[in-house]
Amino acid sequence: MSIPLKHFKQGTAKPELPEDGVLRFYLMRFCPYSERGSLVLAAKQIPHHKIYIDLSEKPDWYTDYSPLGKVPAIQLTTVEGQPALVESLVIAEYLDEQYPGRQLYPADPLQKALDKILIERLAPAVSAVYPLLFTKDPPADALSKFEQALDVFEQEIGKRGTPFFGGEQIGMVDYMIWPWFERFPALKLVLPEKYELDKDRYAKLLEWIELVAQDEAIKQTALASEMHAKFIATRQEGTPNYDVAFEEL
Amino acid sequence: MSIPLKHFKQGTAKPELPEDGVLRFYLMRFCPYSERGSLVLAAKQIPHHKIYIDLSEKPDWYTDYSPLGKVPAIQLTTVEGQPALVESLVIAEYLDEQYPGRQLYPADPLQKALDKILIERLAPAVSAVYPLLFTKDPPADALSKFEQALDVFEQEIGKRGTPFFGGEQIGMVDYMIWPWFERFPALKLVLPEKYELDKDRYAKLLEWIELVAQDEAIKQTALASEMHAKFIATRQEGTPNYDVAFEEL
Repeated sequence: MSIPLKHFKQGTAKPELPEDGVLRFYLMRFCPYSERGSLVLAAKQIPHHKIYIDLSEKPDWYTDYSPLGKVPAIQLTTVEGQPALVESLVIAEYLDEQYPGRQLYPADPLQKALDKILIERLAPAVSAVYPLLFTKDPPADALSKFEQALDVFEQEIGKRGTPFFGGEQIGMVDYMIWPWFERFPALKLVLPEKYELDKDRYAKLLEWIELVAQDEAIKQTALASEMHAKFIATRQEGTPNYDVAFEEL
Repeated sequence: MSIPLKHFKQGTAKPELPEDGVLRFYLMRFCPYSERGSLVLAAKQIPHHKIYIDLSEKPDWYTDYSPLGKVPAIQLTTVEGQPALVESLVIAEYLDEQYPGRQLYPADPLQKALDKILIERLAPAVSAVYPLLFTKDPPADALSKFEQALDVFEQEIGKRGTPFFGGEQIGMVDYMIWPWFERFPALKLVLPEKYELDKDRYAKLLEWIELVAQDEAIKQTALASEMHAKFIATRQEGTPNYDVAFEEL
């Protein structure tokens, strides 16, 4: 009884899943918020089933797990009533607290708070990069806003003085911001000017990207820039094809 | 050395504060996100100085504490470097974990996650109520969207079967959503149709509101509907007067 490797669409039956006490993780393969959950599941080696959801044509049964139809969601099959959790940061923190293995958030309340604030500081870069990646006519100041938002991260990793934002080892803060850093290099493939992060302005951040890319959980989860660009092309045409993720490049 | 009871504006000097190891809390008196912090400080009886910030004309020095100029912020005067925290939910959780007294979030990771998700579920009600309170021409469907969002809370408190969302005692989830429930009755004073929540449709929620209003931390912090309406009037005119909070009604 295996789940078909495709994004479930409206009108498709709910996949039959074994009552095996294994978590059920609902996601869209190109969704950076979903990727946050995938990364924590991989980093903590938590067994789970992945069920992919087509966000353009959501199956009706999906609101049973996510009332607003958002991804990701995780269904807790071993808890009475099998409740589902939504919101990527809530899911990540729950998995971190509930499951054994190395804790990804710092135990110190202050350091954890500072890491959560840093995660929120990515929002201006995310807002700026979306029209650049997904629309044909992004605002003129989008790229400079994007760069200013990243300056914060270049400064911060310098200030922290550790290889990862999370310290000597990769931590929750690194995993929570990574999905966007994975997508930024697609700008080179999507924008006519073949944009790349400036090697001097973002020297430390580029080192961090290289280091994070070698992490086992990241390697299991990340997609190549070319794959992101392939998906972006379908989305720019107004017919996002989520299943290109499962095709050869 | 006491801090003047006013919202600090651009061009005003930073108030001189004693190095007394007391937390410094930066807020705007009518800001519901700020109120979340005020409520946790009051509930846990944490000594602090309050410094009010004029959000229309922010003092330049405020970005030293909140880089994006947002309220609330809290400066940790006893920690090396006196760092400041932002984001109301991050501040609330930090105070809850760091300070003694009854823990406001449940210790169980699952219940905490479910409470955090419920806090996020207020977002559609908040989005719907803003144009109703603050603009002269709200969208036609704003009120029905607002009511649908509140249906979720009416159902949820029934499902939980406890007097508070947090259980038998008031909890973090109650404090985090309260500031908006405090403001909803201003709809009666602001809207021409003198809108009030339907007594049958929201029977349990109205009981909850009455119960929460009796909590000590809420009583110390909440403002009367008439005071909210007074502020709303200044804001609708395009010249928000935050200091009306310190005037007699």
